[in-house]
Amino acid sequence: MLRSLSRIRIQQSKRQFTTSSRWRSALLPRTIRQILDAAPETASTTEITVNGWIKSVRRQKAVAFAQLSDGTDLNSRGLQIVFGKPEMAEGLDLGTSVSLVGAIVKSPSKGQSYEFAATSVKILGTCIPEEYPIQKKAHTTEYLREHANFRPRTDEIARMLRLRHAAKRAFEDYYEVNGFTSIQAPVITNNDCEGGGEVFRVLPDQNDPGDGESKESSHFFGNPAYLTVSSQLHLEAFASAFSRVYTLQPAFRAERSHTNRHLSEFWMLEAEMAFVNDLSVIMDVVEASIKHVIRDTAFQETLASDSQRAQLDSMASVPWKRITYTEAVEALRQGLGVDAFEWGQNISVEQERWLADNVGGGQPLFVTNYPTNQKPFYMRVNTDESDTTGSTVACFDLLVPRVGELVGGSLREERVDYLEAALNKHGLPADQYEWYTELRRFGTTPHGGFGLGFERFISWVGGWENVRECIPAPRWKGRCVL
Amino acid sequence: MLRSLSRIRIQQSKRQFTTSSRWRSALLPRTIRQILDAAPETASTTEITVNGWIKSVRRQKAVAFAQLSDGTDLNSRGLQIVFGKPEMAEGLDLGTSVSLVGAIVKSPSKGQSYEFAATSVKILGTCIPEEYPIQKKAHTTEYLREHANFRPRTDEIARMLRLRHAAKRAFEDYYEVNGFTSIQAPVITNNDCEGGGEVFRVLPDQNDPGDGESKESSHFFGNPAYLTVSSQLHLEAFASAFSRVYTLQPAFRAERSHTNRHLSEFWMLEAEMAFVNDLSVIMDVVEASIKHVIRDTAFQETLASDSQRAQLDSMASVPWKRITYTEAVEALRQGLGVDAFEWGQNISVEQERWLADNVGGGQPLFVTNYPTNQKPFYMRVNTDESDTTGSTVACFDLLVPRVGELVGGSLREERVDYLEAALNKHGLPADQYEWYTELRRFGTTPHGGFGLGFERFISWVGGWENVRECIPAPRWKGRCVL
Repeated sequence: MLRSLSRIRIQQSKRQFTTSSRWRSALLPRTIRQILDAAPETASTTEITVNGWIKSVRRQKAVAFAQLSDGTDLNSRGLQIVFGKPEMAEGLDLGTSVSLVGAIVKSPSKGQSYEFAATSVKILGTCIPEEYPIQKKAHTTEYLREHANFRPRTDEIARMLRLRHAAKRAFEDYYEVNGFTSIQAPVITNNDCEGGGEVFRVLPDQNDPGDGESKESSHFFGNPAYLTVSSQLHLEAFASAFSRVYTLQPAFRAERSHTNRHLSEFWMLEAEMAFVNDLSVIMDVVEASIKHVIRDTAFQETLASDSQRAQLDSMASVPWKRITYTEAVEALRQGLGVDAFEWGQNISVEQERWLADNVGGGQPLFVTNYPTNQKPFYMRVNTDESDTTGSTVACFDLLVPRVGELVGGSLREERVDYLEAALNKHGLPADQYEWYTELRRFGTTPHGGFGLGFERFISWVGGWENVRECIPAPRWKGRCVL
Repeated sequence: MLRSLSRIRIQQSKRQFTTSSRWRSALLPRTIRQILDAAPETASTTEITVNGWIKSVRRQKAVAFAQLSDGTDLNSRGLQIVFGKPEMAEGLDLGTSVSLVGAIVKSPSKGQSYEFAATSVKILGTCIPEEYPIQKKAHTTEYLREHANFRPRTDEIARMLRLRHAAKRAFEDYYEVNGFTSIQAPVITNNDCEGGGEVFRVLPDQNDPGDGESKESSHFFGNPAYLTVSSQLHLEAFASAFSRVYTLQPAFRAERSHTNRHLSEFWMLEAEMAFVNDLSVIMDVVEASIKHVIRDTAFQETLASDSQRAQLDSMASVPWKRITYTEAVEALRQGLGVDAFEWGQNISVEQERWLADNVGGGQPLFVTNYPTNQKPFYMRVNTDESDTTGSTVACFDLLVPRVGELVGGSLREERVDYLEAALNKHGLPADQYEWYTELRRFGTTPHGGFGLGFERFISWVGGWENVRECIPAPRWKGRCVL
């Protein structure tokens, strides 16, 4: 089975590439990455055009050099340009866009195999240094958030965006190969998932003429509509038909606190799996998919340094510890003092990090089976020999060093009587969740799933302090630039 | 270049599959697709478990048959189950979820190579026929929209979801191989893109306690916030750093009319390309990427019939015609009468379909260079020898049979003075678009892009009449189920 699925996919890839020569003939100009990939075959022999933005210029007496980037060169350093006459570099400043004609030649300099010997220069767009918000010096993260339109042109944010791209691709590869169907769950919903209250409402615009109904009371959809806080409940409906589904899509929380782990708009990787009655299977999938990403070649190319790569490699090469909440309580009481923690208490963000560092040994750590009272209505109550009192649910958080909670998952309550009791206990209206309860009434299956905060993942693997630097356009209370 | 990029990707795929044996060992139960793929090696010899939902049961005197689906079997017919004794099929109805133990054996029946000989049956979830909203008979599309939680369990909607999945994957493959970076543009924005008015506002929930500010006037983000109607403007900022970017993500319009082509929430594939000054390059990319998808093996497997495959194959095998708006006007006047159309008039949906059928010959048709007055501010005004008066813009619509407009694209105005004049002419506030204008002030490049309505694409290739059947959870004015 394993081999035959692999065969299918590789054959497909081959087919794709043999036919690709046709569409590759489109007139899209070659990128710097494509030019460098082709360098061994074309160096010195072919006159080519290269386009990009100037990163830096060094003028000498008889010659000038520039670094040119078009965003496709992996290290942001770009392609070294050699101008035979220094006056060819006139008018070139940080940010100037140019189209150059010349040839790729072997580079005598260190740190690069090839450089570009320019024979003609065409300035496409000037970039006056005195007016350009981006300067050669390093800017603060706060300054760059305010200049969000130019932020992708800086090395760090460009690296983050490449890392996001590679991580997204690698995650999707994992789920593809393992038989998951990708489903785009609705963004506008009349469920607020966890009944948390921190949701955004969706209304037609005030300036919209509408169709005569009262502005104040009008519900465009006939009922109140919200931005989704999680695709989980919806994915459960689709897992009840496709067995395994996943999505990477936006979610929203009207979070009012300012932390380095929260955004009003963020992306979540969520998956649901039917026919699973063992929480460890869900954790296996989480662990395997993350390890798959951090071992992926294209992903690793986007990391900042060999030490970053080595650190992630070491995480990928060991099994991640799994402890219960009850064991975590014991560890906290032993480590921080017996009065520091009582069973039933919430584990704070600081305590999560302490656990990851001290119990997890600096590796990711799963904590399972939290108290029922701390968790949402949909988690499956433990009623087996390990906990006959229903005081815990079959759930887990994955805690990672520095960031804390990265993934949350659980078995979902598939027993209709337990689910109805939980809705009741949480004071949630049964009719609003009728469609969800119905999934248990007709062909229910033991199932479970998880959600991974994509920006937290990027923050963790890429080494950024704040998730605001881990998304193309961050939004938080009080700020929405672009 | 072509070959080396291909090599990279295939090597990567191989690596991925050789390491995959490790994470494949996770305890996720095997899907029907995985079981059937492995059948030649495991048939008759191994006792295995198969899970799924009953699609149908036939009871005979000495034996019973059932069709079992878990959503991974491509044709929705599922796996044929053989019960040695008819009483083993007791309690099995449409929708019942089961876990069966038995063996895969060669099937004597027509239309399938293998079937499953069950030795034991475990009912996981009953599904009482009298109460189950889904019956064996065909339901209307309207009925199924109301039962959106069960809709994915029906053959047609399941096929649509598989087709969506395959199309998404194939589109992303195309952009990956061609050097595009995927960027997740913001969903909440303070721009309303085209100044159209049909936007949704985003507000914190009424029931949210807030932080003491007045409810009526409070803007969570400090300024009015909307749901994006298009990622285009944002993608332009990212293309100004990465040269080629794309996204497949949700967009929103508070559309009040009820048509079979509009949803309040829909998914758009959008791409922007820098260093392109020829509209035909953008059209080449559109045409090539769509042809790539409709030739993709995994995509083709999700089509309903050989005739559907043949029809799409024929579209993929010819170049698609490209005519100007002015030529379209001529054709409409010749075809429908000289009074039927004046230059400057909008081409109606019916006229678009007429053009696709009659000028496009039943194939997709590009119509280019529309009147400036009909189009948004950001499209590049034609000022070359073909049109010195600025009466047209360098844009295109791709019209396809039955559906009409599928893709819209253009060169974007990269000249700051023209852009400012256009903003002014459209009465748009310069300060709100300052970040966008700045892209032209600092290192501007000739560039362009397009947007493809993903549900319209699904509707076109899959043969569905209404886009409401082309998205997991459709939303439109007056209706938001789930």
